[in-house]
Amino acid sequence: MKGFFYPRTATGEASLIPSPPWYYSGDLLTVEYRTDPARVADLLPAPLSLAPDDPGAVALIWADWQSCSSGREELLDPVRSQYKEAFVVVRCAYRGEVFSRCVYIWVDKDFAVARGIHQGYPKKLGSMWQTRPHPFGQAAPQIGPGGTFGATLAAGDRRLAEAVLTLREPCDGNGFVNAHPMAHHRVLPGIGRGAPDAFAELISSGAAGFEGGPAWRGDADLRLHESPTEELARLTVDEVIGGYYRQVGVVWNGGSTLERLA
Amino acid sequence: MKGFFYPRTATGEASLIPSPPWYYSGDLLTVEYRTDPARVADLLPAPLSLAPDDPGAVALIWADWQSCSSGREELLDPVRSQYKEAFVVVRCAYRGEVFSRCVYIWVDKDFAVARGIHQGYPKKLGSMWQTRPHPFGQAAPQIGPGGTFGATLAAGDRRLAEAVLTLREPCDGNGFVNAHPMAHHRVLPGIGRGAPDAFAELISSGAAGFEGGPAWRGDADLRLHESPTEELARLTVDEVIGGYYRQVGVVWNGGSTLERLA
Amino acid sequence: MKGFFYPRTATGEASLIPSPPWYYSGDLLTVEYRTDPARVADLLPAPLSLAPDDPGAVALIWADWQSCSSGREELLDPVRSQYKEAFVVVRCAYRGEVFSRCVYIWVDKDFAVARGIHQGYPKKLGSMWQTRPHPFGQAAPQIGPGGTFGATLAAGDRRLAEAVLTLREPCDGNGFVNAHPMAHHRVLPGIGRGAPDAFAELISSGAAGFEGGPAWRGDADLRLHESPTEELARLTVDEVIGGYYRQVGVVWNGGSTLERLA
Amino acid sequence: MKGFFYPRTATGEASLIPSPPWYYSGDLLTVEYRTDPARVADLLPAPLSLAPDDPGAVALIWADWQSCSSGREELLDPVRSQYKEAFVVVRCAYRGEVFSRCVYIWVDKDFAVARGIHQGYPKKLGSMWQTRPHPFGQAAPQIGPGGTFGATLAAGDRRLAEAVLTLREPCDGNGFVNAHPMAHHRVLPGIGRGAPDAFAELISSGAAGFEGGPAWRGDADLRLHESPTEELARLTVDEVIGGYYRQVGVVWNGGSTLERLA
Repeated sequence: MKGFFYPRTATGEASLIPSPPWYYSGDLLTVEYRTDPARVADLLPAPLSLAPDDPGAVALIWADWQSCSSGREELLDPVRSQYKEAFVVVRCAYRGEVFSRCVYIWVDKDFAVARGIHQGYPKKLGSMWQTRPHPFGQAAPQIGPGGTFGATLAAGDRRLAEAVLTLREPCDGNGFVNAHPMAHHRVLPGIGRGAPDAFAELISSGAAGFEGGPAWRGDADLRLHESPTEELARLTVDEVIGGYYRQVGVVWNGGSTLERLA
Repeated sequence: MKGFFYPRTATGEASLIPSPPWYYSGDLLTVEYRTDPARVADLLPAPLSLAPDDPGAVALIWADWQSCSSGREELLDPVRSQYKEAFVVVRCAYRGEVFSRCVYIWVDKDFAVARGIHQGYPKKLGSMWQTRPHPFGQAAPQIGPGGTFGATLAAGDRRLAEAVLTLREPCDGNGFVNAHPMAHHRVLPGIGRGAPDAFAELISSGAAGFEGGPAWRGDADLRLHESPTEELARLTVDEVIGGYYRQVGVVWNGGSTLERLA
Repeated sequence: MKGFFYPRTATGEASLIPSPPWYYSGDLLTVEYRTDPARVADLLPAPLSLAPDDPGAVALIWADWQSCSSGREELLDPVRSQYKEAFVVVRCAYRGEVFSRCVYIWVDKDFAVARGIHQGYPKKLGSMWQTRPHPFGQAAPQIGPGGTFGATLAAGDRRLAEAVLTLREPCDGNGFVNAHPMAHHRVLPGIGRGAPDAFAELISSGAAGFEGGPAWRGDADLRLHESPTEELARLTVDEVIGGYYRQVGVVWNGGSTLERLA
Repeated sequence: MKGFFYPRTATGEASLIPSPPWYYSGDLLTVEYRTDPARVADLLPAPLSLAPDDPGAVALIWADWQSCSSGREELLDPVRSQYKEAFVVVRCAYRGEVFSRCVYIWVDKDFAVARGIHQGYPKKLGSMWQTRPHPFGQAAPQIGPGGTFGATLAAGDRRLAEAVLTLREPCDGNGFVNAHPMAHHRVLPGIGRGAPDAFAELISSGAAGFEGGPAWRGDADLRLHESPTEELARLTVDEVIGGYYRQVGVVWNGGSTLERLA
């Protein structure tokens, strides 16, 4: 039976996602801020603990992606290639090293959900929008001083977050919170009633390839809204660190198990 | 850390799905037909094999569901409760017993995708529509002789299947293909490049509770269409067995492992 | 050139909507309440004025429809037949008679938008959900004492309204606000810069045929939320009059001009 | 009462669209081809007739837009700003002059539908996708030699058209079919049963402002698919003229009436 992911069949052609490597081109709008470190600790199961420096730092990142597999055929049928996402990253410590960790994430395509199950991103469906730069400014900002970008996130027909970023100056990178290898749990609950997890592991992964355009820094405003099925608003915005915009190209090609947990 | 599914947090409130039991009320439109048994065998990984009797029988089932957890709060925020699906079921043999097996399935909500990952249903996102009965016939059929229902399935902006069912008479049940306990694989690929599966098991599950209204049988027409990312159309409709309509209430509350595979 | 609505072609087959009559089967969940009559007057252009009795009465109505034209072919391709809507109705006076008037409405299909342009309903796109009754109560209420239904409305990725209705007893009808013939404006702005309306008329229409099941009355809770592009929340809920649930079948087949305005 | 479009209120804030001028920044992917001129004539009501030269020329254009009004506030809430569309343009003659005419168009937002009603574009809802260029080529083409772009159109859960364009060289413009002022009908059927149109006029409009980047020409493949509610596939692709890609900025600010028809 062939197929990287389900459904597995004699040909493998129906698999929801093909084997890595996976390729991405897109734009990232990042807002970094500080919240109560206790709220970050609420999201770090053992064996993870708070990062030693600036433990309450959070990054809320919007990404507008085009993606494909090695065959690139998705690019010619772009309903299978384009997707948007918003995700929340914190940092944590594991065996003396600092990792990044995605604690919440929303996407708008099923292939992106499936990649997340493989990579340990806790993906839900949402509706994400971010202003696009364009060479002609009739209805678009440029990536440069004064360029203003909005970004919104909704799920379950409720708006969860909205940001406005006005670019000011070039800078060295688009933030420090999402700059480490990721430490993610991959978990499958047991099939029996009340059973413990059938499988659980802590894995690490990062980009197998990366190119980035100039990063821009600016002034950011971020508002989070309550929802009965989300906990994002508990990560209150106590102090904005900064906002960033950057165009990137990324390759992802697997990770490694840090620790088997179940 | 709490939460049946991801994301797991200190409170568990953001979990994409709560713990079973899960409750369902809905309408099922089923078309059963025969295809080449070799095409069914293409979908049965070891240790499963073809069912001994009528091995090429297939059921394509549309379902219009309302669902909830024990707390029932989803019912008051029905964007979290209602979903539609279409799924393809075949039968198979395992250790001398006959099981049903869902080989393809499309749903339209993320909580339904997540339940599928737990239960071993290979869920993708799709767009499903089925005619609804209603007490007033201005724009609706009734569940009774001559009642005509349409059903369609699309994914990736392509129509994959369409059926028309005209009810003729009451019958004993809504088909025999989806009438056994399910035998499903639950698989998580290894995180390393080219790694074997990190976890794989064959599980069985069925309804923990079931109520069904009168089943109706009728004449069905079913057309399947090609898509570069689907293999549904390979299960060619060689002979229609019958079409069925039934309203049901179901409880699902876990299953059991038949065999650990990896 | 043929076609009731655009696009008009030699065959008329591509017309977004066919000629009336139009047929509807569906469920209505209504919450009636009182707001400041001055806010209702804000929505009544000349020659309309406030209704003499209970001028601040408002109905917010959710409807879950299946609809078709005389040929009924939409019922077999239900993506063309089913739609949901939420709409706000007030009453007004015109030449000594009382009319109902839809002041805001959201739907989720283009054919419903087009019908609204013809009928003078100011339709926008939205996301509406309402709990469905079902014969099996695993995840559904019944239409009867204690049956509890939720309903929500969102547009632009913001939740605009949410209601909960618990049925208590049968009653004579599902409210009085939406019980008169409709008085609607049909307006097309002039194509020139700053031009006055190219066309404007006040029309009246109502059902050409109606069947209704038993109406149920109950206790309703209604919350309205702000949005920068909506004015619904200005119609503050000062006092809930009642909540209603009813299944209906309707035929619509044109109206008449009350007054040509431009 | 204020508001350019419905609903009109005391403040005008809820109007589905604000007054022109409207501003657009976006990317256009165009495929021009020849069909049987008789099929074009089927789409030209009196007083329009076939263009004298190359009367069977057709342009199928995909556009990925960001748009706003003079206040530009939509750009910070991009769910109100971004939309996609695909539209079919032919040429026609009126009183000795050649005009372009949009005969079919699909968009994915309600504000775009409303603008179309004002401008005489026969807009339906659809699902459109077109490959995006990006500075980093991991999963994106560049606008340059060899850059390959796909584009698809679906409506009613059926795929209607798909194109693949491979750029070869710069050229003077992105086609000749959509290069004239538009000649559109604006029509409102009468509200009475079987009544003639209450309003009909032939209008002309074009861009009030335009900027365009370099145009690129290339090899295009275009396939059209049947649908029971569309007539696009009757405009058979007899001969591809060429494919084009261009980034543009546009301002629209009203038009003028050519002839009042009803």
